[in-house]
Amino acid sequence: MRLFDFGVSFDINIKNQNKILKRITSPNSRKLGRQTIAFLNQPRIMGRAAIVSKKEKEGPMGEYFNDVLADVKLGEKSFEKAEVMLFAQAFNKALNNARIDASDIDILLSGDLLNQIISANYMARLYDIPFFGIYGACSNMTEGLIIGGMMLDAGFADYAACVTGSHFATAERQFRGPLELGSQRHRYSQHTVTGAGCTIIGLIENGVKITHATIGKVEDYGVTDPANMGAAMAPAAMSTLTQFFKDTQTFPDDYDLIVTGDLGKLGEDILRKLMREQNYPLGQNYMDCGASIYHHDQHTSEGGSGAGCCATILNTYILDKMEQGTYKKVLFVATGALLSLITPQQKESIPAVAHLILLES
Amino acid sequence: MRLFDFGVSFDINIKNQNKILKRITSPNSRKLGRQTIAFLNQPRIMGRAAIVSKKEKEGPMGEYFNDVLADVKLGEKSFEKAEVMLFAQAFNKALNNARIDASDIDILLSGDLLNQIISANYMARLYDIPFFGIYGACSNMTEGLIIGGMMLDAGFADYAACVTGSHFATAERQFRGPLELGSQRHRYSQHTVTGAGCTIIGLIENGVKITHATIGKVEDYGVTDPANMGAAMAPAAMSTLTQFFKDTQTFPDDYDLIVTGDLGKLGEDILRKLMREQNYPLGQNYMDCGASIYHHDQHTSEGGSGAGCCATILNTYILDKMEQGTYKKVLFVATGALLSLITPQQKESIPAVAHLILLES
Repeated sequence: MRLFDFGVSFDINIKNQNKILKRITSPNSRKLGRQTIAFLNQPRIMGRAAIVSKKEKEGPMGEYFNDVLADVKLGEKSFEKAEVMLFAQAFNKALNNARIDASDIDILLSGDLLNQIISANYMARLYDIPFFGIYGACSNMTEGLIIGGMMLDAGFADYAACVTGSHFATAERQFRGPLELGSQRHRYSQHTVTGAGCTIIGLIENGVKITHATIGKVEDYGVTDPANMGAAMAPAAMSTLTQFFKDTQTFPDDYDLIVTGDLGKLGEDILRKLMREQNYPLGQNYMDCGASIYHHDQHTSEGGSGAGCCATILNTYILDKMEQGTYKKVLFVATGALLSLITPQQKESIPAVAHLILLES
Repeated sequence: MRLFDFGVSFDINIKNQNKILKRITSPNSRKLGRQTIAFLNQPRIMGRAAIVSKKEKEGPMGEYFNDVLADVKLGEKSFEKAEVMLFAQAFNKALNNARIDASDIDILLSGDLLNQIISANYMARLYDIPFFGIYGACSNMTEGLIIGGMMLDAGFADYAACVTGSHFATAERQFRGPLELGSQRHRYSQHTVTGAGCTIIGLIENGVKITHATIGKVEDYGVTDPANMGAAMAPAAMSTLTQFFKDTQTFPDDYDLIVTGDLGKLGEDILRKLMREQNYPLGQNYMDCGASIYHHDQHTSEGGSGAGCCATILNTYILDKMEQGTYKKVLFVATGALLSLITPQQKESIPAVAHLILLES
């Protein structure tokens, strides 16, 4: 089911009768179906970092968060400038963790939630590194790891860094109202995580590897409430997960852990329902980062959101547990709601996308 | 020279003393230096389209623009919704030109200038195609072609489509003031092109091929005037072009045409000066799309801008001339100014990036 309200009528799925071009299939096809790809050389995680604020440290994941901001403004004059430094600090910590220099990184992939991805752009300005800006809202972490992973896998780059995150104060000002306004929170709202994560990948000998990825399609089930993003994003997560299981001929039980980005508690329930309908029911091995990052008594309604939500949990809890051997095969699906402030005002529903990576230790 | 005004002091260029990881160089390295890559299988242009408004049709490139909008609102209720349909129409025309179906495209890469790239996202919602949102401002066209080209080259995709564009009315509302306000134009301003371009690439037997690319770094020479984007972007174009010449050991005279995105007349002059200083002077074979898209008496100050500026000229004039044999080797450098409305208000200077592709027939 896909809903649109565009007035212009034209054929979306053009069928060309006269295909005359001879197809040349790539000599080293890495495609498993149209959406799912397999990495031949399997890029590995060689360094990682996550920085959060005190609120996330006080949540259920607190024991895995070692780097906590003393000041959510990081000594800057504005929250926007603070977010830039938050990204840079996460990147620097990941470089230290990977034991490589900034000058070793061939490609920096970054995006954030702010208009014209200024946190990513101004962070990239601090470094002398080839840079691609990406935008998949809260799916940035997997979009970056997939593009970076493909570049490594094919020899276009030796080391890639993916940085993303979010900041409660900048997201509120951008998408809702400035904090000073003191607006009441919406019933189904989620709390934007103040945090950034960075993952550095390379073709090294040891470490958790990225073996497969599924690139998402944009899905829209007609949700129009910008406060209820879990409901808007759950269909995208369903679509990508289902496609991955079909393309790899596997089932949810084949994985130690299946993680979605920031659907929140309601979105998590919706995804479970949608996956049951697809005959790929999710069991005890499923968790959502948004539903897992805050305690109930932290007053965050449906849980956490923002590109920093799954980016910080991936680079702490998930990879910690994989390196310790608790989890061997983890499906990590970051989801993004692709709206701007203006689209709900123009009575548009909220499209969403989800990109998946399979991590194996 | 790189200027920042961030207060927090920390070491940007971390030097790690204890590098212990063994490097594994990719078995099929496609790197020529850190920024420049060579495509082994050379993706080719198999379809293309450009749609512009009447104003661009009346400019010097008019004879090459065959698809012109009768109504800049495309029958939609808002200019934002019109921009979505503009992107979709360009994509559909390119599919027709490539003689393939939407369902053949493995990856759709798109971005635009609006907040949270809504034109790209809402366009992608219309199709059932794996999608990556990208953001490099007016450098979107080359960012998309580089990522798509890498995916084809390595066997991650068989066909890729890159769509980008801009709309005068949405850009004015977004970055300056709504048209109804009737604000006076700034002296060094450029006029945002209303137009969209789409390029479809595949590993086919004939056609113009993409042989090399140089991924840009973010450059900032301290320009703070958001109306003077040509000056902000020229250093990025210089940086990327110079790096390409060094990495390939070639000179500007080795190419039939060198094209920059939308520096405008002033930016073009600045780039010529900067390239002379680098000992790679640009000669008669250099043109800037922004400086070339409008006549002097069309009242556009320094010329055209917007992601649609070089996207429409690439997919008409440049590729027409290459297919006719007038040009055999063309360096195409799209440039992007990476600001948002908020950054100049917070007294930030304007970073910029430029990504380059080498087209050969």
